[in-house]
Amino acid sequence: MPARRFAFLGPAGSFAHAAAGRLAEDGAELIAYGSVSQAIDAVHDGSVDAAVVPLESSVEGAVPATLDALTTDRPLVILAETFLPVVFDLVARPGIGLDGVRSVATHPHAEAQVRRYLLTALPDAELTPVGSTAAGAQAVAAGRFDAAVAPAGCAELYALGVLAHDIADRPGAVTRFVLLGRPQPAPPPTGNDRTTLVAYLRENHAGALLQLLTEFAARGVNLTRIESRPTKDQFGEYCFSIDCEGHLADARVADALTALHRVCSGVRYLGSYPRRDGSQSPLPPGAQDADFTAARAWLAGVREHGPG
Amino acid sequence: MPARRFAFLGPAGSFAHAAAGRLAEDGAELIAYGSVSQAIDAVHDGSVDAAVVPLESSVEGAVPATLDALTTDRPLVILAETFLPVVFDLVARPGIGLDGVRSVATHPHAEAQVRRYLLTALPDAELTPVGSTAAGAQAVAAGRFDAAVAPAGCAELYALGVLAHDIADRPGAVTRFVLLGRPQPAPPPTGNDRTTLVAYLRENHAGALLQLLTEFAARGVNLTRIESRPTKDQFGEYCFSIDCEGHLADARVADALTALHRVCSGVRYLGSYPRRDGSQSPLPPGAQDADFTAARAWLAGVREHGPG
Amino acid sequence: MPARRFAFLGPAGSFAHAAAGRLAEDGAELIAYGSVSQAIDAVHDGSVDAAVVPLESSVEGAVPATLDALTTDRPLVILAETFLPVVFDLVARPGIGLDGVRSVATHPHAEAQVRRYLLTALPDAELTPVGSTAAGAQAVAAGRFDAAVAPAGCAELYALGVLAHDIADRPGAVTRFVLLGRPQPAPPPTGNDRTTLVAYLRENHAGALLQLLTEFAARGVNLTRIESRPTKDQFGEYCFSIDCEGHLADARVADALTALHRVCSGVRYLGSYPRRDGSQSPLPPGAQDADFTAARAWLAGVREHGPG
Amino acid sequence: MPARRFAFLGPAGSFAHAAAGRLAEDGAELIAYGSVSQAIDAVHDGSVDAAVVPLESSVEGAVPATLDALTTDRPLVILAETFLPVVFDLVARPGIGLDGVRSVATHPHAEAQVRRYLLTALPDAELTPVGSTAAGAQAVAAGRFDAAVAPAGCAELYALGVLAHDIADRPGAVTRFVLLGRPQPAPPPTGNDRTTLVAYLRENHAGALLQLLTEFAARGVNLTRIESRPTKDQFGEYCFSIDCEGHLADARVADALTALHRVCSGVRYLGSYPRRDGSQSPLPPGAQDADFTAARAWLAGVREHGPG
Repeated sequence: MPARRFAFLGPAGSFAHAAAGRLAEDGAELIAYGSVSQAIDAVHDGSVDAAVVPLESSVEGAVPATLDALTTDRPLVILAETFLPVVFDLVARPGIGLDGVRSVATHPHAEAQVRRYLLTALPDAELTPVGSTAAGAQAVAAGRFDAAVAPAGCAELYALGVLAHDIADRPGAVTRFVLLGRPQPAPPPTGNDRTTLVAYLRENHAGALLQLLTEFAARGVNLTRIESRPTKDQFGEYCFSIDCEGHLADARVADALTALHRVCSGVRYLGSYPRRDGSQSPLPPGAQDADFTAARAWLAGVREHGPG
Repeated sequence: MPARRFAFLGPAGSFAHAAAGRLAEDGAELIAYGSVSQAIDAVHDGSVDAAVVPLESSVEGAVPATLDALTTDRPLVILAETFLPVVFDLVARPGIGLDGVRSVATHPHAEAQVRRYLLTALPDAELTPVGSTAAGAQAVAAGRFDAAVAPAGCAELYALGVLAHDIADRPGAVTRFVLLGRPQPAPPPTGNDRTTLVAYLRENHAGALLQLLTEFAARGVNLTRIESRPTKDQFGEYCFSIDCEGHLADARVADALTALHRVCSGVRYLGSYPRRDGSQSPLPPGAQDADFTAARAWLAGVREHGPG
Repeated sequence: MPARRFAFLGPAGSFAHAAAGRLAEDGAELIAYGSVSQAIDAVHDGSVDAAVVPLESSVEGAVPATLDALTTDRPLVILAETFLPVVFDLVARPGIGLDGVRSVATHPHAEAQVRRYLLTALPDAELTPVGSTAAGAQAVAAGRFDAAVAPAGCAELYALGVLAHDIADRPGAVTRFVLLGRPQPAPPPTGNDRTTLVAYLRENHAGALLQLLTEFAARGVNLTRIESRPTKDQFGEYCFSIDCEGHLADARVADALTALHRVCSGVRYLGSYPRRDGSQSPLPPGAQDADFTAARAWLAGVREHGPG
Repeated sequence: MPARRFAFLGPAGSFAHAAAGRLAEDGAELIAYGSVSQAIDAVHDGSVDAAVVPLESSVEGAVPATLDALTTDRPLVILAETFLPVVFDLVARPGIGLDGVRSVATHPHAEAQVRRYLLTALPDAELTPVGSTAAGAQAVAAGRFDAAVAPAGCAELYALGVLAHDIADRPGAVTRFVLLGRPQPAPPPTGNDRTTLVAYLRENHAGALLQLLTEFAARGVNLTRIESRPTKDQFGEYCFSIDCEGHLADARVADALTALHRVCSGVRYLGSYPRRDGSQSPLPPGAQDADFTAARAWLAGVREHGPG
């Protein structure tokens, strides 16, 4: 079997590259793409087997490009997730020290997270936006800037020096990356899984959102993320991007999704996969698979024989 | 095929007798029993095919003996219902007029409903309780009382005169009677059916009752009666006797009952049968059989192939 | 100050008499009445200061006469409660042993609770219903029966012998008695109180009951009893008799009752008084008086000054 | 009184400029700022009286910079809103026709909305991002580009020609602008108002969101927008930005906000102001000011006198 191919949001050295290293099996081929859209297109057209993209950041929240691709484009499925610490270094060409830095390349999101550091350490440096943090390091290596705010670990790749390590104003940031593949059955349940979906609300969104949440709560399915997205059709029309505990193979999750299919104007299942943070909340009474099986057997009995 | 046999709460001429005339087919044999318990026992031991008993009255509410038999005894199933107007006559031996009435036989429940009439028309008559209103008429015929408060229509049966017709202080009372049989499948759905059940709540009854009601509401199943009953085990333990719209063969009802089986400490199905008052409430979106079928098909598809 | 006068459901020696002994202060005058209605009428007309009546039994559930008096008659208020163990003795005239008992007086409810004992111990005795268990003991003392099923403690009062003690088929029964007075402010809160009310539902009772329960749940007010009662107006019209934890002086209870006043077709407050069983459930966040006070102060601030 | 000063997201000719023309009174001074943050800072430091900023777009959804400023910065209050149709023109220097266009300046958001038009009409033109659509027109006037995608009406201001009018791929887009001022009392209610707030959820967001929605629903307060925002503290911590019908002076809105203050970990009121789209939903029973007044009067009565 040939090595599988994985797209990631490049260039080499990006956080997505590090995430891809975790999510791909040994020997897999990792291929850089210039945008989330391009990486996803490569999955659709068969150029790659799967793509590693950021879904949400502890600092910035959801990544709109990823959410919108999952919500409105052709179907994809999440096969795995990983949580990557986001650590920024100030990298520079070999031989340049802090006091030699006149120009710094940064991605705007990264700049927002290291602003105070830069104001203090490099008050006079000129900041120039680049398309990604790894691209900044690449540009430094190419001689276009003195320094860059780049992912930790990137310096070695581009033969740069590290002027300062972990320079975020507020350390501890984490980004959640997911592995997206073409539609396929979910990996088998592990007992600590997550399921992702998008639900489109019928008309009045307040009552409909209450109904949606009730369908999960009534079956003891805990939500770990819920985010509104405009549907781009008109004001006040939202869909909700949702992560819940459990696996499509779990009866409580399957039953909740079946109910959503009835009461929502649309529901898109986006995958069940092993959860990599925290653990399953305790289930309330009546939420185990055996409870669903027993209830269905009871129903079949009373339909066939009456009470008893 | 021999004529079917139906028990009713006797004696002849009782309201239950009139209800039995409506609920039994022509040619059926109607047999009087002295109490609801005895009529129900006759169903259990095979002496009769079914029993006609009162379930609730528009004046007195639920009939505890019937509710408790359905709730705690061996299983029975409701096969049909009828709503009988409750009209009381003052009946007397032929030849006796109002001013000749010194003694009146009444059932206590009947007395409560004609109290003001008796105080006005017969302020000096002595009232004696009897076991049923028809038994009062029987006792008058036997010469033990001058008059009785009896079901309309009863006078003819016992060859008595009618001194006053429809003497209830508040006219328009109705009693709902049901036909109880041994466990058996429900009659086929008609499009305007009712389903009866008892749900036993797990521990804390406030939250549990909220959960129970939510399971019906979430599936668009409207309740037409809900009554608490103590479970006789300890204070604060209740079960709820419930009538809902729809039939066990309707997907929304079956799904709601299956959910109750999971979340309640117990649920007893007591029958689905044609409804004889009012009509089906309009269903909310997603509550038709076709919606349940489509949702299950969708689930099977995403389980097998993933999203799409 | 003259001794206060308390009505109880007599005759002397009844369970209500024992309950009155607990609920009345020393030196109070206890006066027997023949029925719950008469005892309550005596409160209304000023013949007594308060009445001691049974509200619910662990075996039979709610006492309809009491509930209906609280629900539909002129307003009364519950001032106190007590839980009385219901222990039955078989009492007889002095000198008569078990084998000399030919006739037994019982109240029907008592008979239901000692049926198996009587079948075993006195299989051939003739049972005659009497109006109350204490009346049975009274009748034995008057020589009308050989024995009676009577409240424990009653024998001494009527100079009878005890043939058997605590003869209930299922021991441990308890009856909850309440002290009813004319409308007046509630006794001060103790930190472990109960509040009683009746709520009348607007139209559709399923949705309206869900709404009613939500108003309590949203404020962290736990219910300890909820029972449906027909409103006597028409089928399917119920009111709900409710006990909740807390006192009218507690902000969460007052806020919940205020909400019920808005969303129900009617609500009748029936008193706040010290609770005599169990203890207060832990409150969820935001349910303390201080939370309500802070929220109102915040609202006043933003109304006057805007956000900040 | 000197003319009031209003900040808007410039430069002149921007959509925000048009919105400011609607929201400011005649004679007011409109001052362009380079970013939403700068416009808001100008309000805080007193340089201007208020700022006109976009809150949400029918195409892109919420404007994060505005939402975040309202959510996390020093308090501001929304004083008014307006809904502005978003119409794009292709503008060029006088004398240049479609076939002379080699370079086009666009704001990335605008480019996303006219992509198909540009691919068809100008397949070979080079697209360069600029900071705002009006800045594109400005740059064309300065001779830096041949053409720009600019707000309709902008051409005249910059003495440019209109090569094509209303070129959006999907016409009908609308942006909602709001007028932000320093904290102050709300303008008086008009009967068709909107209230904006941010609610921070205590811990588990699924149950807490259910609770939050219930507080609005229970008081008949309809939501017109609800959007999640990460709190930037850690994964799975959200606040919700909410618009509801009604005014802080309406009892149902005030009561709902007071409840949120108790059950949420925080709530920030952001203003009540006349609503400019749609009209008030019909209120359910019990939600009028008079219902709240009557309920409070009833509570005061039973607290003082007991039931009655």
